[in-house]
Amino acid sequence: MASLREKIRIASGDGMADLLIKDGRVVDVFSGQIEKKDVAIFAGVIVGFGDYQAKKIVDVKGDFLCPGLIDGHVHVESSMVTIPEFARAVLPNGTTSVVIDPHEIANVHGREGIRFMAESARGIPLNVFIMLPSCVPATNMETSGATLKASALRPLFKEPWAIGLAEMMNFPGVIFRDSEVLKKIETAKGRPIDGHAPMLSGKRLYAYLTAGIRSDHECTTLKEAKEKLKNGMWIQMREGTTARNLKDLLPLVTTKNSRRIFFVTDDRHPKELLKEGHIDSMIRQAIHLGLDPILAIQMATLNAAEYFRLDGLGAIAPGYRADLVTFDHLGRFRIGKVFKDGILVAENGKMLITPPGRKGLKVGLRVRGSVRVGPLKKDAFLLRSNQLLAKVIQLIPNQIVTKKVMKKIILKEGVAYPNIKEDILKIVVVERHKATGNIGIGFVQGFGLRNGAIGSSVAHDSHNLVIVGTNDHDILKTVNVIQAMRGGLVVVSDGKVLSSLPLPIAGLMSESAVPQVYLQLEALHRAVRKLGCKIPDPFMALSFLSLPVIPELKITDKGLVDVNQFRFVPLFGEG
Amino acid sequence: MASLREKIRIASGDGMADLLIKDGRVVDVFSGQIEKKDVAIFAGVIVGFGDYQAKKIVDVKGDFLCPGLIDGHVHVESSMVTIPEFARAVLPNGTTSVVIDPHEIANVHGREGIRFMAESARGIPLNVFIMLPSCVPATNMETSGATLKASALRPLFKEPWAIGLAEMMNFPGVIFRDSEVLKKIETAKGRPIDGHAPMLSGKRLYAYLTAGIRSDHECTTLKEAKEKLKNGMWIQMREGTTARNLKDLLPLVTTKNSRRIFFVTDDRHPKELLKEGHIDSMIRQAIHLGLDPILAIQMATLNAAEYFRLDGLGAIAPGYRADLVTFDHLGRFRIGKVFKDGILVAENGKMLITPPGRKGLKVGLRVRGSVRVGPLKKDAFLLRSNQLLAKVIQLIPNQIVTKKVMKKIILKEGVAYPNIKEDILKIVVVERHKATGNIGIGFVQGFGLRNGAIGSSVAHDSHNLVIVGTNDHDILKTVNVIQAMRGGLVVVSDGKVLSSLPLPIAGLMSESAVPQVYLQLEALHRAVRKLGCKIPDPFMALSFLSLPVIPELKITDKGLVDVNQFRFVPLFGEG
Repeated sequence: MASLREKIRIASGDGMADLLIKDGRVVDVFSGQIEKKDVAIFAGVIVGFGDYQAKKIVDVKGDFLCPGLIDGHVHVESSMVTIPEFARAVLPNGTTSVVIDPHEIANVHGREGIRFMAESARGIPLNVFIMLPSCVPATNMETSGATLKASALRPLFKEPWAIGLAEMMNFPGVIFRDSEVLKKIETAKGRPIDGHAPMLSGKRLYAYLTAGIRSDHECTTLKEAKEKLKNGMWIQMREGTTARNLKDLLPLVTTKNSRRIFFVTDDRHPKELLKEGHIDSMIRQAIHLGLDPILAIQMATLNAAEYFRLDGLGAIAPGYRADLVTFDHLGRFRIGKVFKDGILVAENGKMLITPPGRKGLKVGLRVRGSVRVGPLKKDAFLLRSNQLLAKVIQLIPNQIVTKKVMKKIILKEGVAYPNIKEDILKIVVVERHKATGNIGIGFVQGFGLRNGAIGSSVAHDSHNLVIVGTNDHDILKTVNVIQAMRGGLVVVSDGKVLSSLPLPIAGLMSESAVPQVYLQLEALHRAVRKLGCKIPDPFMALSFLSLPVIPELKITDKGLVDVNQFRFVPLFGEG
Repeated sequence: MASLREKIRIASGDGMADLLIKDGRVVDVFSGQIEKKDVAIFAGVIVGFGDYQAKKIVDVKGDFLCPGLIDGHVHVESSMVTIPEFARAVLPNGTTSVVIDPHEIANVHGREGIRFMAESARGIPLNVFIMLPSCVPATNMETSGATLKASALRPLFKEPWAIGLAEMMNFPGVIFRDSEVLKKIETAKGRPIDGHAPMLSGKRLYAYLTAGIRSDHECTTLKEAKEKLKNGMWIQMREGTTARNLKDLLPLVTTKNSRRIFFVTDDRHPKELLKEGHIDSMIRQAIHLGLDPILAIQMATLNAAEYFRLDGLGAIAPGYRADLVTFDHLGRFRIGKVFKDGILVAENGKMLITPPGRKGLKVGLRVRGSVRVGPLKKDAFLLRSNQLLAKVIQLIPNQIVTKKVMKKIILKEGVAYPNIKEDILKIVVVERHKATGNIGIGFVQGFGLRNGAIGSSVAHDSHNLVIVGTNDHDILKTVNVIQAMRGGLVVVSDGKVLSSLPLPIAGLMSESAVPQVYLQLEALHRAVRKLGCKIPDPFMALSFLSLPVIPELKITDKGLVDVNQFRFVPLFGEG
């Protein structure tokens, strides 16, 4: 690596730069202007503009040049791929930096999972900064693979990649001053602390802010975003696969406040990464909705860099990292070339290089073998009951909240069965981290399966196994298949696997690339549809049924949870 | 001090706040809007808006409320007072935070001087952040009291008050990659590094920026500021006592770039602090010149806080320090009340409290006894010569650059005397840190003294004693008086002291308050005028004659310096 001395020397015009990008119209995010000038790069850093000698020249022929794009908050695990594969998917879209919250893998593997993410980001042409997960586990009503207390986070903050504390979802814990929550905040002091506070307003919001939390990505209405912004929160405008807030929040942006707003995706599934893109898609959408392209680019670059204090990122200027992208037109914003650290890594939507991490990703044994289910008896899922009425989790289309309804199940000789005609199926959560043998059993309405079962090791937030099925035999088969795959998604019918997607890394991520994972997901969806299910993404619906912080009725490995009362409730009967 | 827990509790509405500021029109620097609302404060922190129970209520009756003002770069020593006295002067003007560069005292006392400044800021109602001086001494052509290498700065960066590296004046050292300069930059890595690069442009500027320097306060033209801003420098718009750049630079500001611009004073003498004010005067001037008041306030608050990464400063929001000021009118911007950490400390231009530091300032023995002159012989200033022509330092009115001219002096029996008729006076620089006995002797034209001598222990950048006089007797008297005062300014005539200002702290600062120092300076000026001098501020002119980095001819304790050639030259004759 060239020394600072060498970089300064080349910048001063004494010696050859590595690369000169000629004839670009450079978007200057500091002044908000565009200027035609050549950009000189040496040792991965922009060293100057104009007339430089260089070993290599790339003529971008009048295309626009803007800084590499930044995703300010993303759970890579939601894309079901490793970081090197995620990089391969987003680099052609112009993303050169991501701020990740490895919340999902941390729930499975704790610090080891976070370190795995940091390790797997080494050497790849994508800047990966890690916000340390603040809420592992999400609740004590479930068995997670790990618990991260403040004392466990403290040593991690010494790592160069750990830049702050990730979304503080436990806002009641802040407002009501839970000791462990406050310890985490105090441990992170001086670094960015991300918020996650849907609908929080007034004094409860002030209490949350007084703790030092400075951003939020959960705004869904303009009113909410306005209140949060004026009270000091940076607004992370989100456009994920399901949570899509850009359109509603865009009217928030003015020239006076835009500096406090930037773009995040939070969760993007393989399909949307492939079909829509990444942060580039948000810029396109914002411009299409009428935002000044310069402001949109500032939001996607400099603003995030300033919030996270990422020195030398988010702009095209001497001393800044040579992360740049070309695009054709201010109105269209289609990404052409992508330079990472001064190397042309992608062009016209295609990677030009194979990120080193892709070949050499060393996956730790534990991270690869996270699924440990206790011994299951043949009748493990048998439900004995003498009551006909059960509390049933009722899906609400396209939402992660559910309804709690009382429904009749089928009762035969003291055993409770799904009522398939009424679409009341059995749901099972099997603890899979510590082989405790914990099993939560309940009923769910809305999947529409007429036979078979579907299951997943992606189940928020503790990622136990969650299975919905029409019969115990297929449910057991589903558990066994997931275990054999070391995690993943599967569709079973009559004891046969119709389709499956192995997710051997922490039970969350595939080793394949995004397009392959997408095709496998499509195959899974087709298989589920054949069983009668009409939900567009049944595995996502499934994955939220185990999250006992989202109302009304959820299920964990420890049992059925009435979220409104925040307590376990018996499956059968009222109360 | 109340715990975070307590603050959150009060913010949530459970319990009594300390103070409620009622009926203010709050300037929200995040949204750029103004909203009438009550501000609740507890334990020195803003905890919320609206309806709170509070122990005390202050009704501001519809006045505007904005965040406390920030001076982003100031040498407090230039005001010739200690930090507590500086605080007393600027707090009524609404300044609640200053970022200081203790460059002057560091040249006298090194790290001990910096620590003295940090110590003297403790407990006073002004936030004082220290940028560590980067260029002590300025050159090796003079004897300074201290040398600060990178290795000396490193331990200081561990102090909570040390937030970055101060103005890197040695821009040739950066561009030409001086090892020690690069070491300092690398030591400061990750923290703000201030620039100081007058007229630097093109590749030399790019080289400077590539080093990681991110701000500049030396712009004097719009063109210069535009180039620096678009290349990534934060523009510190300066309005000092002599360097006044606001008017020229204000057209730079647009809604798209204003976030990268903030206000600094650099050097303000007692007169201007009293007569004009501080950062408030810059806001007034900017508004008067047509800038949107909201942008002006953002520049004076949030922008500086963001550049220096001062979390919880620069805005009125929950979790932010309760540093607020009231003002009457968006167009006039006259400061009314000043709250520091939630305490009303000043109102209508008057301090309401005595800062603790004022009474109890413990001045270290060495800091108080910095003037150590070697034993002076009676003929110490005698100049033997057989040449009639000498190199004379010619003052240029109102500038710190000088001209080098050849002039005839008076020659009698092999001794050179001032040519008083031609206003060619003797100038003497006496080393005063280490009692080396070093004396530099030369001639200067432009002071207009017809008899007597004037002298100062404020002499940039090494702060040796510099004296201009008509005869050796009065010059010697001047040196002796300064030594007896332990530093200061003095006017002598016919062996008698006409006026003096003791500056016993490092030979730079008085122990008096700003108004007293101002009166003493006025008396000094009157006395100098009586001796025939017409320069408005002769002591300031004097103080720059020893700075061997400003062309053309200067003098240090080591001799006469031709700055264009950057070498010592003989006093008599050409060459």
